[in-house]
Amino acid sequence: MDFVKGLKQKETVDISDILSGEWYGKEVKMKGAVHAIRDMGEFSFIVLRKYDGLVQCVYEENKVSEYSIKNLREGATMEAIGVIAAEERAPNGFEVRLNGIKVLSEPAPDTTMPIPINKWKLKTSLETKLSLRPISLRNVRERAIFKIQEGIVRGFRDFMFSQNFTEIRTPKIVAGNAEGGANVFKLEYFGKKAFLAQSPQFYKQTMVGVFDRVFEAAPVFRAEKHNTTRHLNEYTSLDFEMGYIDGFEDIMAMEAAMLTYTFNLLATEYAKEVKLLGIILPDTTNIPTVRFDEAKQLVSEKYDRKIKNPYDLEPEEEVLIGKYFKEEHNSDFVFVTHYPSKKRPFYAMDDPRDTKFTLSFDLLFKGMEITTGGQRIHSYVEQVNKMVARGMDPSEFANYLMIHKHGMPPHGGLGIGLERLTMKILDEQNVRETTLFPRDVSRLEP
Amino acid sequence: MDFVKGLKQKETVDISDILSGEWYGKEVKMKGAVHAIRDMGEFSFIVLRKYDGLVQCVYEENKVSEYSIKNLREGATMEAIGVIAAEERAPNGFEVRLNGIKVLSEPAPDTTMPIPINKWKLKTSLETKLSLRPISLRNVRERAIFKIQEGIVRGFRDFMFSQNFTEIRTPKIVAGNAEGGANVFKLEYFGKKAFLAQSPQFYKQTMVGVFDRVFEAAPVFRAEKHNTTRHLNEYTSLDFEMGYIDGFEDIMAMEAAMLTYTFNLLATEYAKEVKLLGIILPDTTNIPTVRFDEAKQLVSEKYDRKIKNPYDLEPEEEVLIGKYFKEEHNSDFVFVTHYPSKKRPFYAMDDPRDTKFTLSFDLLFKGMEITTGGQRIHSYVEQVNKMVARGMDPSEFANYLMIHKHGMPPHGGLGIGLERLTMKILDEQNVRETTLFPRDVSRLEP
Repeated sequence: MDFVKGLKQKETVDISDILSGEWYGKEVKMKGAVHAIRDMGEFSFIVLRKYDGLVQCVYEENKVSEYSIKNLREGATMEAIGVIAAEERAPNGFEVRLNGIKVLSEPAPDTTMPIPINKWKLKTSLETKLSLRPISLRNVRERAIFKIQEGIVRGFRDFMFSQNFTEIRTPKIVAGNAEGGANVFKLEYFGKKAFLAQSPQFYKQTMVGVFDRVFEAAPVFRAEKHNTTRHLNEYTSLDFEMGYIDGFEDIMAMEAAMLTYTFNLLATEYAKEVKLLGIILPDTTNIPTVRFDEAKQLVSEKYDRKIKNPYDLEPEEEVLIGKYFKEEHNSDFVFVTHYPSKKRPFYAMDDPRDTKFTLSFDLLFKGMEITTGGQRIHSYVEQVNKMVARGMDPSEFANYLMIHKHGMPPHGGLGIGLERLTMKILDEQNVRETTLFPRDVSRLEP
Repeated sequence: MDFVKGLKQKETVDISDILSGEWYGKEVKMKGAVHAIRDMGEFSFIVLRKYDGLVQCVYEENKVSEYSIKNLREGATMEAIGVIAAEERAPNGFEVRLNGIKVLSEPAPDTTMPIPINKWKLKTSLETKLSLRPISLRNVRERAIFKIQEGIVRGFRDFMFSQNFTEIRTPKIVAGNAEGGANVFKLEYFGKKAFLAQSPQFYKQTMVGVFDRVFEAAPVFRAEKHNTTRHLNEYTSLDFEMGYIDGFEDIMAMEAAMLTYTFNLLATEYAKEVKLLGIILPDTTNIPTVRFDEAKQLVSEKYDRKIKNPYDLEPEEEVLIGKYFKEEHNSDFVFVTHYPSKKRPFYAMDDPRDTKFTLSFDLLFKGMEITTGGQRIHSYVEQVNKMVARGMDPSEFANYLMIHKHGMPPHGGLGIGLERLTMKILDEQNVRETTLFPRDVSRLEP
């Protein structure tokens, strides 16, 4: 009888081992993918791609007698056996002087890379990059984007845990939808009509009644028919919802603190990728807030622009509000508060001082909405009345209204679009650049 | 202009503050939901429910003159103002002697709780519990299940990070499906046919070509038509996939080490819930492995059972294999290896010594499969040949085969059913007990 006893001792080294240990002058084994081969005449460079960076290996035929480099192809994976030597011009300041090569796998016969992934920056169109996503992501710069994205989610979660939020997992197949409207995917569910969740709204509110503070980082689905540079049909929503708030200002404060924490995490744990991508991390310690109606007024005056619709923000207005607060307050962020009631969902709490507006906010980052949040109605009577006033039938929402009926604390929360936040951090122009496998009206693969 | 400057100083205390600070004899403010009210004659107990436990408050009418307890109802939320005093018989060893009550919200008029959530254990049917999920989860024992589940996911992720895995987020709306078969949900996607992902298989393999080691904890969807105690139509899959393996044994070792880490995390960070639910955490430092065909033979001999189908494991056989290894090796876990090729998907690597079997495994926990994993084919030619031999058309899988074509390291991985793992840790009999909002053939709400 054999037994599995956990991890065995590692026989190979990674870049981080070399950088932190005393390996110089010693022979190591290291595995990686053949990222580039460069014939230098007397010798060749084999650049290995590993999860934590690139490694320069030096191949001299007389030293590696049993393997001819002529047989080696980009895309193969191999084990390099060699001695570590300092080399300033190599990535990470060292190289491996090869004594042996063991090929672990090979690409298909008679193929070449469809794009030059070993170039520093892929100079192909977004369209091509996305069509070849499984390969284009092997470019070191492309993949670094998704380490940054990993870091954002980690920062979000770690901060939420530190603030006593509980992580939840809510269903994505649902019977009804929180955000209303037509942009919802339908599916057949054993003869019943079902939908893909546009947001975890009902469920996260429900769970505030259970754990006081909850969060979730999970996919949401919007059947938007328009193909823009900032919309996706499936994206990751970073959601939190918190009870016992004094007002929606508590939610904005929590988000600001979370962003500060997350950007610090990126600056430290993801310093390599921050540097590689040339990211300038924004300051979030002092975010201005402005009322929706005031913001429209300010922008209209400063940029000499007519207000067309007092109850809605056009994308161009968002851009100008961002510009205004950058120019006037040197801030990349601005909270726009008190959105009109008619533009917010039925669960939004109206401002008792003026019920045409809600106790809600958006967070704009470099002129684009990355968060929508606000206080929710907790009173059963108030919620039912608002539904009726909107022509909704409360009996269709009995499962949701159960929480109000049996008592909910004052509460609110928000949702952050992960891919958009990543896009703006990176100053990218299209949200597909910061989505592993984007889904849009015309794109369902890869 | 107002600015958001991060979190403000907290004015209220939580249970953890009391337990770690010097609050005895001092007046505090504490917020929570009215979980129970008990009239003791001279005085009353108000039990507050907070995310971190229950708090006993003592109400005496002459001390809280401005608020009559007759108006207080279960399900209301309130701020308690009072002095902390040691009290052995109270939860957590203290009580709050009230000087004031501020009601924050109230349940709907003329309602009562549909189930006695303040009882220690809900003695209602599973059916009732699920129908009233938003309320039944407010029971302290019920919600503790989902803190344990949070802990499992945290343990999984933290361990993966420690082993240099990268977290990925793969699409749930897909054009084709990895696991095949009929149990797939279809949806309309802008005139095209699309599916809900049965697993992140193709994408996680793809990302091994990018980051060497990847993981994801996300929903998967299976349109299983049978309503059993162990199937869900939407569940959370803990997936990892790792490159540069020497064999599928590396994957089993990684899983065993992950489970050990996670159970240690539960024992420390979730000690309160472990105790509350009476969980006995299993030992995973020494997990026996047995070949599929041997396991069938052992069970057939020991329990005098005829082998009906040599190429499949029936659920009863899984139970008996679990029983066998508990009796013979005192292990709750057993890795069953070398599943027949015809029962495994097309991407599974066959055993070169006997291609009727695969280099794969299941992990059984207390007689139930909680993990399926194995080594995958990395050679393009081998993968195409296996597809053709199965009557599949490789051209339909061009996006997937791109990774093999341009080179993949030897790799493999696994998927763990989160709800099933939680169920077996808790010795529950139905996987719906350990799912926040289960989806099955007849259940789409709440």
